[in-house]
Amino acid sequence: MTYCVAMNLAEGLVFVSDSRTNAGVDNIATFRKLHIFGTPGERLVVLQTAGNLATSQSVISLLRQRLDGEEANLHNVDSLFEAARLVGSTLQEVVEHDCGNVQRQGVDLGCSVLLGGQIGEEQPRLFNIYPQGNFIEATRDTPYFQIGESKYGKPILDRALNHATPLEQALRCALISFDSTIRSNLSVGMPLDLLVYHAGSLEVPQGFRVKEGDAYFEGIRAQWCSGLRQLLGELPAPPGDYWS
Amino acid sequence: MTYCVAMNLAEGLVFVSDSRTNAGVDNIATFRKLHIFGTPGERLVVLQTAGNLATSQSVISLLRQRLDGEEANLHNVDSLFEAARLVGSTLQEVVEHDCGNVQRQGVDLGCSVLLGGQIGEEQPRLFNIYPQGNFIEATRDTPYFQIGESKYGKPILDRALNHATPLEQALRCALISFDSTIRSNLSVGMPLDLLVYHAGSLEVPQGFRVKEGDAYFEGIRAQWCSGLRQLLGELPAPPGDYWS
Repeated sequence: MTYCVAMNLAEGLVFVSDSRTNAGVDNIATFRKLHIFGTPGERLVVLQTAGNLATSQSVISLLRQRLDGEEANLHNVDSLFEAARLVGSTLQEVVEHDCGNVQRQGVDLGCSVLLGGQIGEEQPRLFNIYPQGNFIEATRDTPYFQIGESKYGKPILDRALNHATPLEQALRCALISFDSTIRSNLSVGMPLDLLVYHAGSLEVPQGFRVKEGDAYFEGIRAQWCSGLRQLLGELPAPPGDYWS
Repeated sequence: MTYCVAMNLAEGLVFVSDSRTNAGVDNIATFRKLHIFGTPGERLVVLQTAGNLATSQSVISLLRQRLDGEEANLHNVDSLFEAARLVGSTLQEVVEHDCGNVQRQGVDLGCSVLLGGQIGEEQPRLFNIYPQGNFIEATRDTPYFQIGESKYGKPILDRALNHATPLEQALRCALISFDSTIRSNLSVGMPLDLLVYHAGSLEVPQGFRVKEGDAYFEGIRAQWCSGLRQLLGELPAPPGDYWS
């Protein structure tokens, strides 16, 4: 499985992905799911993928391979909406190419993609591209998307995140969301890949890999866990009729 | 959907169930999913159900209907293990009876059951009965089970609950687990039914219904939410290389 979160906030964009892939519980490997495209001063386009690894790798390979061509590609489209359409149609192309052979064997070729970034004068945007190739866009009301194993880590996002949340606080919130997921689900695992983008900068950050044992991440995991336990202990006791 | 939690702890048993059923998002109703059997001074048997409502209601109806008969029933079996086998076989009986008509139409008749309680001299026990009718038992290592929409509420249980947790603290933990689930998933809803059982008492508690607007539950929900936000705000800021 996989877990990816992306946020489009007033101050910019936050992306965090795990890197575990598994076929069943006994074929576990590490693959990067956060992919960065762009030209400094002009555009940043970030993709995160979940689902069938063969499909998502083929999509990323085709997108990279076509960067130097004449046709529409992630380095020449005029808007992030056009980038989302391009990724959606590339996804459809890969699934159509592969499904003749394997779909009949019951293999799910589906792949979900989060696409965020900024192109030129446009505001930063964020899209959630479905396995069918169509997509939705994040808004002020719903400023974040998750793909993959999303349920364990959703409550903290629903409680603590909104469009005005500062980038630094949003990043901590995303990391805690990953902590909750990693604790409760074996199929999501370290290392984590993350990228923070400041709106309007048109920089192309390299992103950062949070490895197993990373001092900061381990520190906030421990602090969060003991804080939660203390918080639970401080809640008032249930009234008598709860015990009847 | 549904969400039910049951815990078998050193001090006794805790059961909490929601009461929402839905077929899609537009056919929502309230049905009790926590069912109490027993004889004070002799036995307590509590069932919680998730899955197909027709199946779970038929199972409960048959179990109640047979209480006065000569054959094995929940009021005369000698152990909770026998009770679990009885519920499992009743579940199989209902599914076999109904599946001739509807299974071919793609309807999932499956139903999961949590069964906990205490019979006579036995220690309190807790079983998770699968839709196939077989089951597993909670242990000291894994003292709780969830059925239904379990992922949103699992992280807090994994962090804060173990076999030695006092009943009162465990009940708060379960209620917070429900709060997380209700916030993030429309298909789990109020009111909640709960029951707390003190090991060895052989009482048959009536349980308690936590209704929408219940002052205690609303209070701890608000306190938990503001506490989480504060906790998140108190975490140290990520180091510089996280932003590269």
